[in-house]
Amino acid sequence: METMCWYEDRLELLDQTKLPHEVVYVKCFTAEDVARAIKTMQVRGAPAIGASAAFGMALAALKEDDADRQKFLARMEEVGRHLAATRPTAVNLFWAIERMLAKTRELVQSGADLKEGIVQEALAIYREDIEMNKRIGHYGNEVVPAKANILTHCNAGALATAGYGTALGVIRAAHAAGKDIHVYADETRPLLQGARLTAWELMQDNIPVTLITDNMAGYLMRKGMIDLVVVGADRIAANGDVANKIGTYTVAVLAKANRVPFYVAAPGSTVDLTLVNGDLIPIEERGHEEVISLYGQGVAPQGVKVFNPAFDVTPHELITGIITDKGIIRPPFVEGLKKLFTGEEE
Amino acid sequence: METMCWYEDRLELLDQTKLPHEVVYVKCFTAEDVARAIKTMQVRGAPAIGASAAFGMALAALKEDDADRQKFLARMEEVGRHLAATRPTAVNLFWAIERMLAKTRELVQSGADLKEGIVQEALAIYREDIEMNKRIGHYGNEVVPAKANILTHCNAGALATAGYGTALGVIRAAHAAGKDIHVYADETRPLLQGARLTAWELMQDNIPVTLITDNMAGYLMRKGMIDLVVVGADRIAANGDVANKIGTYTVAVLAKANRVPFYVAAPGSTVDLTLVNGDLIPIEERGHEEVISLYGQGVAPQGVKVFNPAFDVTPHELITGIITDKGIIRPPFVEGLKKLFTGEEE
Repeated sequence: METMCWYEDRLELLDQTKLPHEVVYVKCFTAEDVARAIKTMQVRGAPAIGASAAFGMALAALKEDDADRQKFLARMEEVGRHLAATRPTAVNLFWAIERMLAKTRELVQSGADLKEGIVQEALAIYREDIEMNKRIGHYGNEVVPAKANILTHCNAGALATAGYGTALGVIRAAHAAGKDIHVYADETRPLLQGARLTAWELMQDNIPVTLITDNMAGYLMRKGMIDLVVVGADRIAANGDVANKIGTYTVAVLAKANRVPFYVAAPGSTVDLTLVNGDLIPIEERGHEEVISLYGQGVAPQGVKVFNPAFDVTPHELITGIITDKGIIRPPFVEGLKKLFTGEEE
Repeated sequence: METMCWYEDRLELLDQTKLPHEVVYVKCFTAEDVARAIKTMQVRGAPAIGASAAFGMALAALKEDDADRQKFLARMEEVGRHLAATRPTAVNLFWAIERMLAKTRELVQSGADLKEGIVQEALAIYREDIEMNKRIGHYGNEVVPAKANILTHCNAGALATAGYGTALGVIRAAHAAGKDIHVYADETRPLLQGARLTAWELMQDNIPVTLITDNMAGYLMRKGMIDLVVVGADRIAANGDVANKIGTYTVAVLAKANRVPFYVAAPGSTVDLTLVNGDLIPIEERGHEEVISLYGQGVAPQGVKVFNPAFDVTPHELITGIITDKGIIRPPFVEGLKKLFTGEEE
């Protein structure tokens, strides 16, 4: 099952709002289509959003007149701004758009084929994401015991990336290495990415998984039923503070209180060295209907006031290690995160 | 809106599985009807279960032949065992049944009218619960600042008791005292008592309330948006460990980490001095369908494995104070809890 498929004239995205009940692909022919899919969370997960946005720019490039190369560049910048306005928290989105624009500028300068070059860059982002996730899995496997109950929150799986997954990449690698892995998946309200996506994805791969509601994770940790937590990330600040799906901070506090190792798995594209700490990461607030209704069924009194922050920030003090495609970074994170961008392997 | 109404020949229970969509009363004519309502959670909340069970015994008494007083007692003991088997965690259930049986034994001995005496005892339990909750509110109000954002979990309101509520009793008293109170209600998965019951109950009383999902409480606390946590209890061990709705432990850990006072509000009938600590409290596990479907709509993949503990235990170290009908007990809790039963006021 592919999260996204590129077919020259279009991008097809597995509609994650319909899972696990229906396996349907959304056909995106324009950048506008892709922007809509990101906004409505038909595609979600920081790396998947980044790759989708790159393909969105490729779709725009294919439709654009490239006779006037400067005008073409201006138009691509406009498309980039439009795609960037879809969701504020995950930095991979901005990273992918920036990379696509940098490539466009380079192509405009060099005189090479613009459309072909831009499509190839989007495909490179896509392929590199899968490769990076496999490396994250490789490094992450080191911290997984031979027999482990692993808790994860939200979905940082194949569905959240171009493929293989970050947090679930670690779990996949440990499972593939023959370890005795059992996953507890937080259902992750309000949109139930844990129940609908993580449980589904792991069941597809025959990796043992048990679903719990978000407020059960503490019970399991206190009972000694969790050996390890691994989650994904939407943005990592320079000091190692991590923005991720709402509830991640709670899991981290519980892990610390119960001496359970807490790992974050993410590629370099999730790191934002421009922010000194996580308090500077913008946190998206989403609509109240996500909390008060489920599949059109009201689950709360009509007219109730709702607060719906979609992410939270886990301070670096609560994080045991950040598993990247270049190795595991441990505290203090500042140096390790900087090195990611100077190309040194851990 | 009454949680339960006694009408000589029957007990009517506000069906809490139907709230907030429908306001419907379940008519219970027999102890068996009451047992079913408790088991299916049409009535829930530790003190409400206790009072309902007492009325269940009254209904059994009314139908029983009281010519042979020993046989009558044996039959009442049988009804008590049946009612006690409905739910394992809340101790108020066993406390109310025991009190009804003690009264029955006393009446059997004294030769007084059995049926009348038993009905009066059930009514006494009911009325005393409301009075105790008002006293809990009175004492609890002392710890509520003049302007406070209060977080609560599950429903420890009028709906969880004979009336007025324990945790929501504190909130009601503070609101009635003219304080500027705003409540954040955790939705409380899987059965959404926070969304369906607490939000509804507070809206009925025009007490400002905002609904959040369980995994947002940590975010709010870290942002300094919560001044105080107050929750109910299903059973309190002799050392002050508290069993309450699943997720309470998580809220307590978050409160400690963020230096937010964490209070438990409960009447004496919730205290179980026979258990030295909370690890001995039996934790009910409920069916998987509560987690994987909502109003008949599946919210997870078919066949997914589920773990569904309905309660957790908050260790006493995380509790700032236990607000009882005889005053606020503060650590160390052992002495204060013992005093509750020797009649000394704090």
